Amino acid sequence: MTEKEKMLRGEPYFSFGEELAGERQHAKEVVFEFNRLEPSKVVERHALLRGLFGSAGGKFYIEPPFRCDYGYNIHWGEGSYANYNLVILDCNRVTIGDQVLIGPNVSIYTAGHPIDPVTRAQDVEFALPVTIGNRVWIGGGAILNPGVSIGDNTVIGAGSVVTKSIPANVVAVGNPCRVLREIRPDEIGGDHGSD
Amino acid sequence: MTEKEKMLRGEPYFSFGEELAGERQHAKEVVFEFNRLEPSKVVERHALLRGLFGSAGGKFYIEPPFRCDYGYNIHWGEGSYANYNLVILDCNRVTIGDQVLIGPNVSIYTAGHPIDPVTRAQDVEFALPVTIGNRVWIGGGAILNPGVSIGDNTVIGAGSVVTKSIPANVVAVGNPCRVLREIRPDEIGGDHGSD
Amino acid sequence: MTEKEKMLRGEPYFSFGEELAGERQHAKEVVFEFNRLEPSKVVERHALLRGLFGSAGGKFYIEPPFRCDYGYNIHWGEGSYANYNLVILDCNRVTIGDQVLIGPNVSIYTAGHPIDPVTRAQDVEFALPVTIGNRVWIGGGAILNPGVSIGDNTVIGAGSVVTKSIPANVVAVGNPCRVLREIRPDEIGGDHGSD
Repeated sequence: MTEKEKMLRGEPYFSFGEELAGERQHAKEVVFEFNRLEPSKVVERHALLRGLFGSAGGKFYIEPPFRCDYGYNIHWGEGSYANYNLVILDCNRVTIGDQVLIGPNVSIYTAGHPIDPVTRAQDVEFALPVTIGNRVWIGGGAILNPGVSIGDNTVIGAGSVVTKSIPANVVAVGNPCRVLREIRPDEIGGDHGSD
Repeated sequence: MTEKEKMLRGEPYFSFGEELAGERQHAKEVVFEFNRLEPSKVVERHALLRGLFGSAGGKFYIEPPFRCDYGYNIHWGEGSYANYNLVILDCNRVTIGDQVLIGPNVSIYTAGHPIDPVTRAQDVEFALPVTIGNRVWIGGGAILNPGVSIGDNTVIGAGSVVTKSIPANVVAVGNPCRVLREIRPDEIGGDHGSD
Repeated sequence: MTEKEKMLRGEPYFSFGEELAGERQHAKEVVFEFNRLEPSKVVERHALLRGLFGSAGGKFYIEPPFRCDYGYNIHWGEGSYANYNLVILDCNRVTIGDQVLIGPNVSIYTAGHPIDPVTRAQDVEFALPVTIGNRVWIGGGAILNPGVSIGDNTVIGAGSVVTKSIPANVVAVGNPCRVLREIRPDEIGGDHGSD
């Protein structure tokens, strides 16, 4: 297997080979251009991300600045929005559902390193997929760790650190992020949280 | 009422109409220019924010990069300072007192979305004001959620997530942010915290 | 003593004098250039930081954007890596060991202000050194407060707020950051965490 194949299977791999380094360099150049374009260049920015991502809905919006590692591992849903400073380390698949709202300064990490310092110092890495369901709202400054999934309709509070998967239809907050309560089917949007 | 009037009253509104979208576009262009100017252009950067903000003291300083949504909802006090990467979602009034210190990577969010996913997916938003008193110090990486106020002289620890209002003359820390202790009137500055 | 001498000794000082303001201005200009360079300019970016830092290993990598206050207080180890958006307020010495991994959005703060609001409003500051051992991994979004040290081989979880020193050979997480467990000498890297 190539290092890329190992990476995509969630197995330990080395990230500094020619193939992966070249792909990261390409993503860096696209993202650099995305972040440098003037605010009015909405169509051009959209086209850059559509070309970079693995897949994307017809209508979506990501505020610059934005950063990712490869791009092709990102699958971005229809009508989903992210505010300033989104960072996605997409060494494995990152699936964003439809009509998702992502606040400023959110980080999505698929990338991990060994806990063992000797192995870690040999530049061995691994990556686990992250999945965000439909109509999820991720509050500003939240961090999603490798391997987690967040179920449909769920709200993640601002500043939460998501270390384990969170089910659908709940409000979850904190470091580590834990379920605060369920969202009732009859509930109407009078409550609130941070963007 | 227009959508802007609803927004400023803290009522549910749609943010994608022409008036609000145009105002956000103007703010993005000013902020883009602010962030692009070379470090020596202190006077020019200051003038850009004075023109954008609802009001501002004669002497103040915000390190680039900085981001906000409208600008006119921000009222920035005399001698108040913010370090790198301040993000203010100012869909409602944000009042910063005098001689306030704001560390790097701080986020101030007035913007919220309904908890109900169906209403949220219809792009309904609302916004609640945020107020920071005089001589407050907000530690780096802190997040202020919609509707909170922070009383005079108070210190908010680095990385705190402020979900409820914090009184004057206290040190408050954590996620969620809670009062750790009161500051005694006779206390001299020998203690410390993060910038 | 000059204000710079007081700063470097960890004593209260005023940061707005000509000497320190000039040094910060120089660092801002170097860092601005570092962040503006195109992704392919790896050699040029490396040279800029080598010229700015107090010392640095022959091989190291810092992803832009990066920000620091002085640069000369930063001592960066051999083979150590930092991802996007590292912020170092290096008003006192910041020592990064060898083969350290630093995730995105990490903040290292040596800078503090008095808790007493009257003293604080007089622009009195102080700064305490931060030390990171060899083969440490700092997870994304972590914050290191003034005066802390982190021992060799230790892993700091994503989103942690490090308010007290953390020993060697442990995994530590949370806000405030606390030791979760020791790393056993025989442990092989099958566990994981966020980048």
